[in-house]
Amino acid sequence: MSKKGIILSGMRPTGRLHLGHQNVLNNWVELQDEYQCFFFIANWHALTTGWEEAKFIRQNTLEMVADWLASGLDPEKSVIFAQSDVIEHAELHLIFSMITPLSWLERVPTYKDQIQKFGAMGKDINTYGFLGYPLLQAADILMYKATAVPVGEDQFPHVELTREVARRFNNLFKPVFPEPQAVVHKKIATLPGVDGAKMSKSYGNVISIGADPDEIKKNVNLMVTDPARIRKTDPGHPEVCVVHKFHGVYNAPQLSELEAQCRAGSIGCVACKKQLAIALEQAQGPIRERRNEILSKKGYLEEILQDGAARARAVARKTMEEVREAVFG
Amino acid sequence: MSKKGIILSGMRPTGRLHLGHQNVLNNWVELQDEYQCFFFIANWHALTTGWEEAKFIRQNTLEMVADWLASGLDPEKSVIFAQSDVIEHAELHLIFSMITPLSWLERVPTYKDQIQKFGAMGKDINTYGFLGYPLLQAADILMYKATAVPVGEDQFPHVELTREVARRFNNLFKPVFPEPQAVVHKKIATLPGVDGAKMSKSYGNVISIGADPDEIKKNVNLMVTDPARIRKTDPGHPEVCVVHKFHGVYNAPQLSELEAQCRAGSIGCVACKKQLAIALEQAQGPIRERRNEILSKKGYLEEILQDGAARARAVARKTMEEVREAVFG
Ligand code: SF4
Ligand code: SF4
Repeated sequence: MSKKGIILSGMRPTGRLHLGHQNVLNNWVELQDEYQCFFFIANWHALTTGWEEAKFIRQNTLEMVADWLASGLDPEKSVIFAQSDVIEHAELHLIFSMITPLSWLERVPTYKDQIQKFGAMGKDINTYGFLGYPLLQAADILMYKATAVPVGEDQFPHVELTREVARRFNNLFKPVFPEPQAVVHKKIATLPGVDGAKMSKSYGNVISIGADPDEIKKNVNLMVTDPARIRKTDPGHPEVCVVHKFHGVYNAPQLSELEAQCRAGSIGCVACKKQLAIALEQAQGPIRERRNEILSKKGYLEEILQDGAARARAVARKTMEEVREAVFG
Repeated sequence: MSKKGIILSGMRPTGRLHLGHQNVLNNWVELQDEYQCFFFIANWHALTTGWEEAKFIRQNTLEMVADWLASGLDPEKSVIFAQSDVIEHAELHLIFSMITPLSWLERVPTYKDQIQKFGAMGKDINTYGFLGYPLLQAADILMYKATAVPVGEDQFPHVELTREVARRFNNLFKPVFPEPQAVVHKKIATLPGVDGAKMSKSYGNVISIGADPDEIKKNVNLMVTDPARIRKTDPGHPEVCVVHKFHGVYNAPQLSELEAQCRAGSIGCVACKKQLAIALEQAQGPIRERRNEILSKKGYLEEILQDGAARARAVARKTMEEVREAVFG
């Protein structure tokens, strides 16, 4: 089958994924039929903001690959690997570092933002490696000569930097790299956390991908509803209700009916939540089963990662041969 | 034989070495009996200040190894290799980058100096890689768990940084690295260039290691002598004369006699230079012969480098296993 191009994307191994990641994963699953895809666990990147948690990275990596596979990533179609298993990424990053002006990295918008954000949490991330992480991303991407990179909008500047680095390398040495295009994720409604804030593990307001029925029930019960509704016959305002937002994604067929009942005061929040819990269980149940099955096969995930690393390495070695030849002649 | 420790040192492959490098090489030759020595061609480092000349690095590397061997480095005793043949250096550098505050690198005294120096030559070296090169040095050194690093005095801060990085890694993760000691080169008189300025390839005032008789003669003739001597009977001031400085290093037995004759106006500069040319040829002749022999053996230098890389890699892989285990658990 002829493919539209080469895709590279990755995630930091922060542990179990949550429903806020589902959108990205669903996009990846779609992409893997159209493109030759490389999906990687960014375990070196994870060190840029959290070497204190480094000791969890190995376990987190396995959990995350389980989430990926359970969500539909197919190791037969896509190359799934851990960044640190292909040390050529470090070599390409080092070579790029020699041709990349410091100012290109200092002006990446997320750079100062993130330092401030982490600083406010009492965490100093102002290391040499943190400054260079968009360059490590450039190496990740260009190693596989990716032509397209699926990103959220905040990552546009990173892809732009990657294109600049590719151009500079090609001009200084030899035309080795294509300039990849940023492909924005198909947007579905962004789900909030159960408390209505941004869904984030650090806020403790998430529902895991493949959550079990208890976690689903507990979290649905915690969801913030229309505060103006005191009695269940009070007319509700679904637009301010977290439960409503989840119905929109996981219970679309019933959405308009439930919305009308809420506005009419003909359904109570308890009943409405019960419907959502059922819908969520319908979506997460099969993922949970696949996830458990994957995790129960001893050594299976390690095998997937080893096989992926071997396939990634084969491409990386070829690229690095070209790079070394271009640089050192 | 029990060794006093492990030494790592390297040079940038700038091409043929000159007599200004002889001191460092003589020190290396002595060290290789007392220590387990790793001597490497810093070809990635060469990119930090000169990717324009990258295409000469491969040839320069071979020339430099020929100079090393002709000067007495012994590939049976020491591990001689090219940095880029052991890509684990890039991996260790990347991992160190994650734990090294930006400020540690910004405050390395040579950093701003060099940027200014190159800036004055119209060359912008202010890249991410140039900022990070002391950290790449730290990776070079610590990869082999070097206990001692022979350095010139200007490189003290680099060894200090290496010690800080080792300490930080050991504290954050596991005690993997020793803290290397700086060992200052045994000082002999620093030789000036033929024009009396600092001997440097970029000033065009050097005599190559293993120079042929013509190069020796031509350069000795160019040497700046006491400008106050008009006639050969004028009393001279050897302390201001370049020829005299070279006699001090290459013609020590005749030095006091020539000095007295100069002060007495009983020897002319032409005759004095002739003596020096003879002494230099005596020193450089055997080196030149070895150098030519080495260069005439087709594939020999490549073999030395391949063998050295294999031995270096074996050590590097062991270190990196420990590093990965320490970081990722
Ligand atoms: S009825 Fe449903 S949509 Fe309306 S406020 Fe309650 S939980 Fe939200
Ligand atoms: S006689 Fe020799 S030492 Fe004296 S000025 Fe001439 S070259 Fe120099």
